[in-house]
Amino acid sequence: MGLTYEDANRILEAALVKADEIDCKMSVAIVDASRELVAFARQDGAVLVSAQVAINKAWTAKSMDMPTGDIGPLTQPGQPLYQFEHAADRPIITFAGGQPIIVGGEVVGAIGVSGGAVDQDDSVACAGAEALAASV
Amino acid sequence: MGLTYEDANRILEAALVKADEIDCKMSVAIVDASRELVAFARQDGAVLVSAQVAINKAWTAKSMDMPTGDIGPLTQPGQPLYQFEHAADRPIITFAGGQPIIVGGEVVGAIGVSGGAVDQDDSVACAGAEALAASV
Amino acid sequence: MGLTYEDANRILEAALVKADEIDCKMSVAIVDASRELVAFARQDGAVLVSAQVAINKAWTAKSMDMPTGDIGPLTQPGQPLYQFEHAADRPIITFAGGQPIIVGGEVVGAIGVSGGAVDQDDSVACAGAEALAASV
Amino acid sequence: MGLTYEDANRILEAALVKADEIDCKMSVAIVDASRELVAFARQDGAVLVSAQVAINKAWTAKSMDMPTGDIGPLTQPGQPLYQFEHAADRPIITFAGGQPIIVGGEVVGAIGVSGGAVDQDDSVACAGAEALAASV
Repeated sequence: MGLTYEDANRILEAALVKADEIDCKMSVAIVDASRELVAFARQDGAVLVSAQVAINKAWTAKSMDMPTGDIGPLTQPGQPLYQFEHAADRPIITFAGGQPIIVGGEVVGAIGVSGGAVDQDDSVACAGAEALAASV
Repeated sequence: MGLTYEDANRILEAALVKADEIDCKMSVAIVDASRELVAFARQDGAVLVSAQVAINKAWTAKSMDMPTGDIGPLTQPGQPLYQFEHAADRPIITFAGGQPIIVGGEVVGAIGVSGGAVDQDDSVACAGAEALAASV
Repeated sequence: MGLTYEDANRILEAALVKADEIDCKMSVAIVDASRELVAFARQDGAVLVSAQVAINKAWTAKSMDMPTGDIGPLTQPGQPLYQFEHAADRPIITFAGGQPIIVGGEVVGAIGVSGGAVDQDDSVACAGAEALAASV
Repeated sequence: MGLTYEDANRILEAALVKADEIDCKMSVAIVDASRELVAFARQDGAVLVSAQVAINKAWTAKSMDMPTGDIGPLTQPGQPLYQFEHAADRPIITFAGGQPIIVGGEVVGAIGVSGGAVDQDDSVACAGAEALAASV
């Protein structure tokens, strides 16, 4: 069975705890295997653009079954996937902050985080992505 | 000050309680005055399309400062706003399920609900929209 | 020579005077023959969606060289242009509130108005469209 | 209370005065906190593309709550936000000419300017953004 709303909420909570820990206002989006939204939060003070970017990161991480930050190096000028961000019907995000959610070796969804520097976004995304594993 | 994440969460919870009460699986979206998402939930079993429709209903209710269900009669064939749903850069929803969130006479955001019949969606949206008033 | 910024401003002012007269909060957009914006105003209290709709009405009125309200009857179910609103790369508006701006028999631009009932929108659009003629 | 039309007009006028001073034909767009247009002007002779670019700059500056010119260095090849301009549902502008409008420490809107070289655009945007402060 796929990612439940209860799962998504546990992931969301873990991500928000991490965001508070590093004192950064974040948007956090959780999608299931279909890449549609299951849970979302935008903290007070997170810039407006972070909402769409977080959702697009989650969409990308499940679309590729990989962390969004791993895509970036492949899309630099001269690299094999140069301009890959325009290859689909919606934005593919190629910088960090999106992480697949893996349960039992299967990618059941993804989390996308935006609002801070990309390494901050990514640390919050990882905290969320690891929440299910930790709670089992 | 505008709609906070804490406010949005209280609205979301009230809507989900109502959805459970009427035993209908729903997507619920809360936007602030900017019409960007603040909080979102999709319950297990809600159809995939409900995610986008809920978000678009919330966007519409704040774009118009009125319930989405009030727009529909004006957009029937032969009526003054026929085809209004296509008039903006994203879908304007003209059936029920979106409600403005009003605090102190000001529209501070909106809630959009999708997943059931439109009257079910609207009853959940109203339960959410009234949550802040009830808690003051 | 085409519609100047000074012309557009005179049109805008005449439209806003009319909006105040009928006590309706409006968005007013003026485009030139290329259909790009030359002047725009959104009055305090006009609903958010009115900004995009006004611009789309002005775009449509010059795209068709006719009042947007004249398009509606042709696009009703069973009529020759049914679903015409989706025929271009951006929304074609088929209800009233967009008027071509005609100088010396030539369509030099258009005005689009949104925020009220469509007949209110159209009366403001007409007031704007007639401003240049009146001032010559 | 947010940015009024009167505020936006004062900002617009200050920007156009600066554009005339540096003898450069400009498009100038003012958005409020919702990022919808409040006021806009395109001067005679400003290239057509400047209309959309000015609007997108204003949208970006409020979406990020920062000057658009500050985004560019982060989005160069090899930098953390490379390809950030495609991360949202509409273009994020990463070069100068968009400035947040700040009143009492709060970002109440933004101005976007296009038509000249980016430093010209930015000087006009700054002249506009400072107009409210100057008049208080």
